[in-house]
Amino acid sequence: MVKIDGERVVAELREFAQIGAYKTGVHRPPLTEDDLKARAWLMDRMEKAGLSAKMDGLSNVIGRSPKPRAVLVASHSETQPMAGWLDGVLGVVYGLEIARCLKEKSSRIGIDVGSWFDEEMWYGYMLGSRMFCGLIDESEIDRARHRDTGSPLRDDLKAHGFDKLPFARMDAQRYVAYMEAHIEQGARLESRDLQIGIVTDIVGGRNYLIRAHGEQNHAGATQMALHKDAGLALCRLRIEIARRFPELAGPLTVWTSGFMRFDPGIMTVIPGQAEMQFQFRDTDSARLDRLDALLHEIAKEIETPCRIEIETHRSWPAANFDPKLQAALEAAAKQHAPGKYMHMHSAAGHDAQNFALCIPSVMMFVPSIAGVSHHWTEDTKEEDIVMGCQVFASAVEQVIEVADAN
Amino acid sequence: MVKIDGERVVAELREFAQIGAYKTGVHRPPLTEDDLKARAWLMDRMEKAGLSAKMDGLSNVIGRSPKPRAVLVASHSETQPMAGWLDGVLGVVYGLEIARCLKEKSSRIGIDVGSWFDEEMWYGYMLGSRMFCGLIDESEIDRARHRDTGSPLRDDLKAHGFDKLPFARMDAQRYVAYMEAHIEQGARLESRDLQIGIVTDIVGGRNYLIRAHGEQNHAGATQMALHKDAGLALCRLRIEIARRFPELAGPLTVWTSGFMRFDPGIMTVIPGQAEMQFQFRDTDSARLDRLDALLHEIAKEIETPCRIEIETHRSWPAANFDPKLQAALEAAAKQHAPGKYMHMHSAAGHDAQNFALCIPSVMMFVPSIAGVSHHWTEDTKEEDIVMGCQVFASAVEQVIEVADAN
Repeated sequence: MVKIDGERVVAELREFAQIGAYKTGVHRPPLTEDDLKARAWLMDRMEKAGLSAKMDGLSNVIGRSPKPRAVLVASHSETQPMAGWLDGVLGVVYGLEIARCLKEKSSRIGIDVGSWFDEEMWYGYMLGSRMFCGLIDESEIDRARHRDTGSPLRDDLKAHGFDKLPFARMDAQRYVAYMEAHIEQGARLESRDLQIGIVTDIVGGRNYLIRAHGEQNHAGATQMALHKDAGLALCRLRIEIARRFPELAGPLTVWTSGFMRFDPGIMTVIPGQAEMQFQFRDTDSARLDRLDALLHEIAKEIETPCRIEIETHRSWPAANFDPKLQAALEAAAKQHAPGKYMHMHSAAGHDAQNFALCIPSVMMFVPSIAGVSHHWTEDTKEEDIVMGCQVFASAVEQVIEVADAN
Repeated sequence: MVKIDGERVVAELREFAQIGAYKTGVHRPPLTEDDLKARAWLMDRMEKAGLSAKMDGLSNVIGRSPKPRAVLVASHSETQPMAGWLDGVLGVVYGLEIARCLKEKSSRIGIDVGSWFDEEMWYGYMLGSRMFCGLIDESEIDRARHRDTGSPLRDDLKAHGFDKLPFARMDAQRYVAYMEAHIEQGARLESRDLQIGIVTDIVGGRNYLIRAHGEQNHAGATQMALHKDAGLALCRLRIEIARRFPELAGPLTVWTSGFMRFDPGIMTVIPGQAEMQFQFRDTDSARLDRLDALLHEIAKEIETPCRIEIETHRSWPAANFDPKLQAALEAAAKQHAPGKYMHMHSAAGHDAQNFALCIPSVMMFVPSIAGVSHHWTEDTKEEDIVMGCQVFASAVEQVIEVADAN
């Protein structure tokens, strides 16, 4: 039975956090000097853990076990700006520790460890893991630009010589499972005094940009019968959504309009144009489709002299994690942290959602203190970090043993 | 029977337009060099018309007839930026022409001519005529700042020595009537091929800043039952207004929400705060009060977990013009432009609305080509300018004769 070295895990996380340290957190955006230093450091650790480490043309780092098959344990090592020391790296270091601990295990199945590019969406939408999973083609790489500088991803890759490397693609036959550990980034575990979250699903969703086209006119001189008020049209749409979405919603369905703008946007002018952003999320992809149809139906049916235009800005499916992998996590949690775990879904996105579309996948959460993340004060108790690694390692070992026996 | 000199009127308007000329229009904001030059030029013309001309502490220009009583014929000579050559000045030059034509008339009642400060709201809300009418006190002058530069009005007045002059106040006993001619700034006359608009009322209104206070939260992680969506609250308010305002509205009532903003205003965050601007207008001040009460009632009654706060940003009463003065204009129009006039209300504000609260007042409109104003292409046909002056002069003469007979 695998026994991880808790002190070593915490020490390795602390060492990792020195690269790009910011206050008690880390600032390590992708393709920066610190990010590349961290990837080199990670490859060195992989080699020491008996893995053969390579970077691909997107700076994805993959450490391969010499075994013919493997469990892929991965997450990401880049960060949001001035962010936390555990977001992403935790799952990568767990992978290193588990690879070290299971290196000598007699099995046909090894541990591969990965760190994906762009999970934090600096250039696009999880480009590293989506390319690895074969979910996108190169045209998405061609179009990608840095969210702040606007610099084309291709240029930034070339500046560091990545244009000479191929994009790695997953060999689905090699992988028994994809397993990712991560901080919760919420306070559900902490508020219940729990240590382990077994993640059942990651919500999918749709983001829309909705525009109404009316007629700009003088608010004083235009009779009410002649108003073609684009702002009013979107208010009506928003209220009809609030009235009719509950018909189709499940207990986890959420929807929000976070942005609305009238044009020209002044007291004395009837808005000729108006724009709103609208989003919904659910763990059931079929329900997402039904909500999408309902949104379009409502837009057709509301009473307005304006034309309503709905642009789907982004659509991503729900990820439903493998029940057997969840069971392995539960068995390990029962053993090491009895009564201290729960099943939960994730409202935030992770690389694992892409793998879930291709191979059996699962995620595990450890608590975030006060639910804080994407901020340098993000933290997790050391005892929870250590417990998380032990539970995760035991689950990985069990997955290997079951696969080995088949 | 008074007979105006049409060529002289047009020539005087063209000469006035040279001061601050911009393309075919005029750029003459208040308290600028060109504005002060225009006021000096105007005072000179007043003196030549037999009036005693003075500026007051707000740069209001008033030319007084030597007669013990008078009809006050006035408007404004400042402009919006890069605006038209007739907006305001038309009514002032009509006053000069009528003063000249009626100078020798044997009557106890003369013509006073005025040009008011700040009709175009560069520093506040028609500060010149409102101070002259005694509708505001000096604290409003103390608070007033230039809308673009932010410079305090007191400083800008002092820079030109106006701090040494008193504010002129109307002697209501002196004035038989206030009469103002203006371009229509709309296309109602032109579209009906008419030359004269007899203005019955100027709409009053209310401007509101309405805020909803909810709770900012993660759009993915917050259950629907816990949403306190400030944006949704204002959409609901807007829709209830659309549903219930028609109950109390008259044929001229108009209402608009021209601005809405959600805070922080991003796709993935439930708006914690939201703000909307809302306005309504009507010619019936009692109805304005009822609509105000209804708005507050709706805000109390809508279903929302958010707190709604309504701030009245500006409230101005409707101006209802004197029926006898309207009749004088109609008689003059019947004589000089039979079949070419109509009664109409004004949706835009004018200095006359302030006088209407104090003494018998009226306005007359001449057509605007294509309804354009507040733009350097603003124009009116010369024949309409001349006809307007003749009708207006005849009406003023009739008002004097009736008053003289009493």
